[in-house]
Amino acid sequence: MNNKKVVVLLSGGMDSATVLGIAHSLGYELYVISFYYGQRNSKELECAGKLADYYKVKDYKLITVGLNEIGGSALLTDTNLNIPTDRADDSSIPITYVPARNIIFLSIAGAYAEVVGADNIFIGANRGIDERTQSRYPDSQPEFLTAFEDALNKGTKTGVEGKRIKIIAPLLHMTKAEIVKKGMELGVPYIYTWSCYKNNNEYACGKCDACKLRLQGFKDAGYQDVIPYETQ
Amino acid sequence: MNNKKVVVLLSGGMDSATVLGIAHSLGYELYVISFYYGQRNSKELECAGKLADYYKVKDYKLITVGLNEIGGSALLTDTNLNIPTDRADDSSIPITYVPARNIIFLSIAGAYAEVVGADNIFIGANRGIDERTQSRYPDSQPEFLTAFEDALNKGTKTGVEGKRIKIIAPLLHMTKAEIVKKGMELGVPYIYTWSCYKNNNEYACGKCDACKLRLQGFKDAGYQDVIPYETQ
Repeated sequence: MNNKKVVVLLSGGMDSATVLGIAHSLGYELYVISFYYGQRNSKELECAGKLADYYKVKDYKLITVGLNEIGGSALLTDTNLNIPTDRADDSSIPITYVPARNIIFLSIAGAYAEVVGADNIFIGANRGIDERTQSRYPDSQPEFLTAFEDALNKGTKTGVEGKRIKIIAPLLHMTKAEIVKKGMELGVPYIYTWSCYKNNNEYACGKCDACKLRLQGFKDAGYQDVIPYETQ
Repeated sequence: MNNKKVVVLLSGGMDSATVLGIAHSLGYELYVISFYYGQRNSKELECAGKLADYYKVKDYKLITVGLNEIGGSALLTDTNLNIPTDRADDSSIPITYVPARNIIFLSIAGAYAEVVGADNIFIGANRGIDERTQSRYPDSQPEFLTAFEDALNKGTKTGVEGKRIKIIAPLLHMTKAEIVKKGMELGVPYIYTWSCYKNNNEYACGKCDACKLRLQGFKDAGYQDVIPYETQ
């Protein structure tokens, strides 16, 4: 039988906040992990810390990973790539893709799960079943998550000793609106979440792809977003 | 056809130094990556930098990953676990195992390979085919490496766009003595390598498991080790 310990990957965005709310509602003992990886925007991480406090998690780790040294994404501090505001509707991978990000984060979450003895890792990966959701990140697809779980269990003490660490993505097949609805039902404090790629201050820009996606999600779900925007 | 760019994982130990020598001898353009992850011993990383200089690599990255925040290994700075000097001869996983270490390092190497456009990642993983080699680390086993390569290619832009990043472990089935022989043939400067788990100064201890394994490897290969020891 599964134990009730879970490692939750928490970025401070609304998807992972919802996942934390789900894990909390299921009665799990919460081990939460966030990453400082050279992302432009530090506001998201502030939110992650507030969410961890809010949910009175058992343990919270903020882990540094120097991905900005490697580069390759508009979300990292070392690049001159611009943050997009015109979400492409083709099927290409966006420039906000960070090479192997979820692979790296899940690997470190796997180490954490092994050390605390958690059988489960919850991640806010979202395949997206409509055009507007973030469906084009390869490391958010079910084929990847299944393959990674297999590799993780072959490469860790936990796995080779016959237990299994499961990777669970509760939002995988949900639309943004469904995510918002679920979170509102569970009372997730979205005030402590941040999605904007561009601003790092009190107000979200309302114009970047991440803001647009978020605002549309709230609208489609029939709710008003609770964070302040410059413009909408 | 494969291109001639390779990412080499370099710890500064003798295995990964040999792998770097092999990649160099094969004419690859060398992209080398090392990790500061809170290991007790900084001497190994000094060696990694010297090896990167020696081989005039195209690019060298030293990436910080805060694994000491997670703990769970005698090799990390935050633990009180003692470095073993009596290598257990049973089949259990040693306390120098660092949870998910190669998984994490390969993930970051995967990101680096993607950014520089390398088709190959070389790693010094060694399954060990005799009792004395480090055969008990799950993340150095072929089943793991194969599964991880699969996950990496499912979760990266490179993979989903139809190219493939290959993970190659040239030492996988070699004994320590065979590794030494190969390295000596290739002129690998073992003077710039460090294996000792215990000392961080001019002299290796000669007594810890890593020293014993190294010394035995040189002896079996018919060579004298070139680094200085307190005792042998």
